[in-house]
Amino acid sequence: MKKVKLKVPATVANLVCGFDILGMAIHEPYDEMEIKLLDIPEIIIKHVDSFGLPEEASKNVAGVVLQKIHEHLKLTTGFEVTIRKHIKPGSGLGSSAASAAGAAFGANVLLGNILSDDEMIHFAMFGEELASGVRHADNIAPCIYGGITLVKSTVPIDIIPLNTPDLFVAAVHPQVEVKTSDSRQILKKTIPMKSAVEQWGNIAGLIAGIEKNDFSLIGRSLNDVIVEPIRSILIPKFDEIKTKSLQIGALGGGISGSGPSIFMLAEKKETAEKIAHLMKSVYNQMEIESYTYVSKINPTGIEIIEES
Amino acid sequence: MKKVKLKVPATVANLVCGFDILGMAIHEPYDEMEIKLLDIPEIIIKHVDSFGLPEEASKNVAGVVLQKIHEHLKLTTGFEVTIRKHIKPGSGLGSSAASAAGAAFGANVLLGNILSDDEMIHFAMFGEELASGVRHADNIAPCIYGGITLVKSTVPIDIIPLNTPDLFVAAVHPQVEVKTSDSRQILKKTIPMKSAVEQWGNIAGLIAGIEKNDFSLIGRSLNDVIVEPIRSILIPKFDEIKTKSLQIGALGGGISGSGPSIFMLAEKKETAEKIAHLMKSVYNQMEIESYTYVSKINPTGIEIIEES
Repeated sequence: MKKVKLKVPATVANLVCGFDILGMAIHEPYDEMEIKLLDIPEIIIKHVDSFGLPEEASKNVAGVVLQKIHEHLKLTTGFEVTIRKHIKPGSGLGSSAASAAGAAFGANVLLGNILSDDEMIHFAMFGEELASGVRHADNIAPCIYGGITLVKSTVPIDIIPLNTPDLFVAAVHPQVEVKTSDSRQILKKTIPMKSAVEQWGNIAGLIAGIEKNDFSLIGRSLNDVIVEPIRSILIPKFDEIKTKSLQIGALGGGISGSGPSIFMLAEKKETAEKIAHLMKSVYNQMEIESYTYVSKINPTGIEIIEES
Repeated sequence: MKKVKLKVPATVANLVCGFDILGMAIHEPYDEMEIKLLDIPEIIIKHVDSFGLPEEASKNVAGVVLQKIHEHLKLTTGFEVTIRKHIKPGSGLGSSAASAAGAAFGANVLLGNILSDDEMIHFAMFGEELASGVRHADNIAPCIYGGITLVKSTVPIDIIPLNTPDLFVAAVHPQVEVKTSDSRQILKKTIPMKSAVEQWGNIAGLIAGIEKNDFSLIGRSLNDVIVEPIRSILIPKFDEIKTKSLQIGALGGGISGSGPSIFMLAEKKETAEKIAHLMKSVYNQMEIESYTYVSKINPTGIEIIEES
């Protein structure tokens, strides 16, 4: 029986000023997925630890992706997927995207790489739609491509993989709930032109900094004058963590996805570790449980661990 | 007597989606400026053809720049400037910026290059302030640096010179008047969040395309959903020229500065020439006089022609 084992990375969407367009893959945390080709036309989903996620294929993020691929290719075979989630659902670290992208990627490997990257993204977006109601690729794209990706549009799919700066990422996931729907609703429908111009100056600087490997420029550009000031209200101690991280030496950072996770970029592993330590201690003081992660930007995305 | 002769290029500001942040130097048209160091502490401005511009130093764009440099450095010497303008005032091709940047650049050459690029930009902005009431560097920066520049901020001055794609520029200056103040006033003070996100996706794509020399990506990103739909109303036949230019093979383009000039980017000289021909014939049909220019993006900016 053909099967493939994958390491599927967490991703940081809404990269500070890159709201709704920029995402980044990291090495830690990651999900493990094993996908088998079945002789029968069924989609079977199993979780090692479900975190309350449904296993019925049509209600499961990986399940719907595989159903759509199955339908599209008129397959007579099926898939059995076993997911060991380390990326916590609701963390803002691309948990649903990992399941969706992993399913599309794994199926593609088992089917002899007949799908293009854009097709994988097309199918994986059905998983995001199930999870959040929105067909977005902000997490799926970096999960599949690795590194930092620009989602220029999803209709048609136009993804631009950017350069991967050699930087470390510290991330914290405090155990508080922020509903994506809430964090979307509190955003304003209109914004001042002046702020928009400031924001696109920062985005332009960030892209130039990423492409030129200019860390100082990346740092100067990691400012979000539109979304962060509003969304950060939903995340306890956001301002304190950001301010202190910058003092320790972070280049910059912000909310991961729609939160509650927070991430910071740093040039040195040592700095990233100090930041992670700081993040943890701030939440310890509030008696909020938290998970912290330190790793590099992940330049390759989903990795095949075993194939047989 | 020390003197320097300069070729000072026209510039295209508000590069489509890069409103208020991106500018580009071109080879044609350009001003000629001759600046002499005087033994007496006076600033003398002469025009070969004044186009109605004042010659009194405190009312002249080049004059105020030199006055500010003079004051700042407590000079006992002075400057005499002779300007032969080919960049028409009010064209939207950076005419005032050319005089301002040329003055700062020329003075610096005569004084033994004691000013940094940022200092030249700082002083040249006094000229822009005189001309338009706004201390902006959208034209000055590409005029001095050459190529395409990102003005991330003017306080403090933070200019990012970008890669120079090997592209041709066709530009047309129709002889109609668009007041910068009018074209600023008609802009909306607030914009929909959705449009802002689309705009910054385009800006991100444009910067990535410029840095990667990816002409297709540059073309796909040259869309302005915020400023152009409003400002283009002030420019006769804008839509027709844009649509037909794209049909001929332009990568994209839009309003130069705040108009009335229009520019288009093209990969081949032949295409740019066809576009310029089209531009001219559209205005000929309307009996509007126009000037057209075809040249490459100017990678170096102001050029020293003669120094003695």
